[in-house]
Amino acid sequence: MLMKHSQVDREGNVFEPPLQQLTYGALLSGRTSMVVDSSNTAKKALTIAIRYAAVRRQFKSGKNPFETCLIDYPIHQRRLMPLLSQAVTLGYTGLAMQEMYESLTEALETLEPGEAGLQEVLEKLKETHTTSSGLKAFCTWACLETIDKCRQSCGGHGYSAYNGFGMLFQDFAVQCTWEGDNTVLALQAGRGLISNYMDAMANKRLASGVAYLADKTIYNASLGSQDKLTDLKVLQRAWDCVSANVTKKAAQEFQAHYKETKNKEQAFELCSQSRFIAAKIHTIGYIVRTFGGVIEKCQDRQLQPVLLLNLQLYALWQMEEHAVYFLKYSFLTSSQMDVVNKTVDELCLKLRKIAIPVVDAFAISDHILNSPIGRYDGRIYEAYFAKIKRCNPQLPEHPYFNRLIKPLLERSSTADDESATINVDEDIAEAQKERSNK
Amino acid sequence: MLMKHSQVDREGNVFEPPLQQLTYGALLSGRTSMVVDSSNTAKKALTIAIRYAAVRRQFKSGKNPFETCLIDYPIHQRRLMPLLSQAVTLGYTGLAMQEMYESLTEALETLEPGEAGLQEVLEKLKETHTTSSGLKAFCTWACLETIDKCRQSCGGHGYSAYNGFGMLFQDFAVQCTWEGDNTVLALQAGRGLISNYMDAMANKRLASGVAYLADKTIYNASLGSQDKLTDLKVLQRAWDCVSANVTKKAAQEFQAHYKETKNKEQAFELCSQSRFIAAKIHTIGYIVRTFGGVIEKCQDRQLQPVLLLNLQLYALWQMEEHAVYFLKYSFLTSSQMDVVNKTVDELCLKLRKIAIPVVDAFAISDHILNSPIGRYDGRIYEAYFAKIKRCNPQLPEHPYFNRLIKPLLERSSTADDESATINVDEDIAEAQKERSNK
Repeated sequence: MLMKHSQVDREGNVFEPPLQQLTYGALLSGRTSMVVDSSNTAKKALTIAIRYAAVRRQFKSGKNPFETCLIDYPIHQRRLMPLLSQAVTLGYTGLAMQEMYESLTEALETLEPGEAGLQEVLEKLKETHTTSSGLKAFCTWACLETIDKCRQSCGGHGYSAYNGFGMLFQDFAVQCTWEGDNTVLALQAGRGLISNYMDAMANKRLASGVAYLADKTIYNASLGSQDKLTDLKVLQRAWDCVSANVTKKAAQEFQAHYKETKNKEQAFELCSQSRFIAAKIHTIGYIVRTFGGVIEKCQDRQLQPVLLLNLQLYALWQMEEHAVYFLKYSFLTSSQMDVVNKTVDELCLKLRKIAIPVVDAFAISDHILNSPIGRYDGRIYEAYFAKIKRCNPQLPEHPYFNRLIKPLLERSSTADDESATINVDEDIAEAQKERSNK
Repeated sequence: MLMKHSQVDREGNVFEPPLQQLTYGALLSGRTSMVVDSSNTAKKALTIAIRYAAVRRQFKSGKNPFETCLIDYPIHQRRLMPLLSQAVTLGYTGLAMQEMYESLTEALETLEPGEAGLQEVLEKLKETHTTSSGLKAFCTWACLETIDKCRQSCGGHGYSAYNGFGMLFQDFAVQCTWEGDNTVLALQAGRGLISNYMDAMANKRLASGVAYLADKTIYNASLGSQDKLTDLKVLQRAWDCVSANVTKKAAQEFQAHYKETKNKEQAFELCSQSRFIAAKIHTIGYIVRTFGGVIEKCQDRQLQPVLLLNLQLYALWQMEEHAVYFLKYSFLTSSQMDVVNKTVDELCLKLRKIAIPVVDAFAISDHILNSPIGRYDGRIYEAYFAKIKRCNPQLPEHPYFNRLIKPLLERSSTADDESATINVDEDIAEAQKERSNK
């Protein structure tokens, strides 16, 4: 297996494979599966937090006879619904990536050097390599953030080890480090984007995922008065516009530093903050485009609007989170940004209404969840208490409870206080003696 | 102690204290100390990460004979220096808060109902209550984020349990939940701000910390062509401007919802996202103003520029992080925002040059750090390996190492392969037999 691509003979001579890029394949597979994993782990945390929010009530409002469920507070919807839409979006993006990766490796394995179409496949490979670096970084970060935000949304019960968030977080945290530190991977993706931008300016052919960089009109795009913010094409254009502009800024910074230092590596280091931002915005745009493609192909009339709602919320929430670029590059005006905020509020409420069926559809069994406050049947307190009792069995006999503590607990409030004065140390010593006699 | 303020007699009659607001005191003390704790815990994580970054080298650049230290990469400076400036800033803010709290409680304890100056002290108490809610929330979040970012900046060694980040994170995480869930506390602070804004519009007297809301010119402030971004007064004005505007937006939303629903509580819930943002921006502005006050009073000529550098970096980095509001309310233009980005890069480099003395000044002993990669003397690998050996003592005797594994490891590469064929199962069984015979 180690000799699949490069070969070494007994005398130590190394023979490189005819297509060196083939070896990228191994990295792609790991990173692609980490996108799916990020979605799956986030779904686990969200299932717990959303079910808990639907059961737990806190504070009465107005004439309502019951206290309000956490999930009915607008701020709680703001805390959880965008994360839910993100988990759904990343899940489908991961699956689409996996399909793309499989057809790509199949093409690579069967290609011979010099064959027609080789250049195109290699260009595609390069693009997938760059994009999967960005995806690995930003999806694992998104998942880690989701786990902790879900934990916090459950208050003290979220912090309790019985509900599993602590272990979920610690186990997942390493994903941000291994298979390439996220920051370093993001910078790789940013480096690829700068090279793509320069290719675009030189009118070279670009792979489909970065083709928007060659569209001269995208750099000055803006939201038209007829454009609906929830329209897939509008959302895609919005992300292409800011992504093209932040990539252009990174490339210009790189060129300025290169002119000054005459050192390519140093120039790349000096523009690393802009490279990082370019990678982040491109990756979100890529996710929006990829999931958008899945939704356009979806034939199921009941499923399609649910998927669309998730993508709309994800894309607009991320637009809020990175609003500065939409204002800076004038895709949106300040008052249009207020409309984005309002639309996110509305979409959160819309998704809240189907949030329980959506998390049920993730089909994570109670056994796998291993979190009483996330139970499918909603009987969380019974399950919680049963788990605590199971994990902390009572001692078969308590050395001095019946004789000493019980009378103390049950004494009448008017009883003479001094009668309850007890020398506990003496009693413990006595009880230990009793035990050791058995 | 439980009867300090309210009194209950044997018949169950409750006597409220003459000044009910006195009972806020207990909450204030807890929250104030959590600001200091956040700073101290963040300093611990930063000491480890910054010392490691100064020792660890990775990749050669140009003709340099050595590989580059992590801390000399601009992106690594971007990862750690803003967090360092934040920890320093929060530390001094916490101390200033503590002093304020102490003089306030002293005034409260000695005040008699009806006394002159009572109204002012109570106004001050209300303001401190609101501000400390916001501070508790955003400072504990900032610390938790710092711990995880420091861990990630140390790569795989950051994830290793020997270096302590995992436990630091898990132990601190609860601070975001107890003494009031951070989101709920932030909303309380936002509610206070809306009421302050309405007082300002009604020309009522405001406490000093929110007095900027009454300044009619602050809402349309912008960066003048002569203004230096690193000037304390300019920074304070910048934060007051956006803070006033986001508070105004929250108050207007509240009023619109109140008109519609006629229900105050519901109106507050419906504007909670804007309330949250108002609390966040006000809190940062409060921190900038408080630490600015400390720096202005600082007489030490060597210390003062170091403190100033930390505040400049903190205030401008936070301006980047919340850039959308500075653009939206036209305090900055897009090209001025580019200057902010460049200034943050420069300040990161400037702080990097003194980063080691700064973390040494935190004076956290190796014993308290309990993290070999964070050692004061920089001999991290020796300490790391020694700790691993100490925590994992070798078995006193290895049943078959000398007889079987050692010859295998030391065999010459030309040796006949078949001579090394070993039936391990058989040998383990044999070794176990030997052991049980002893």
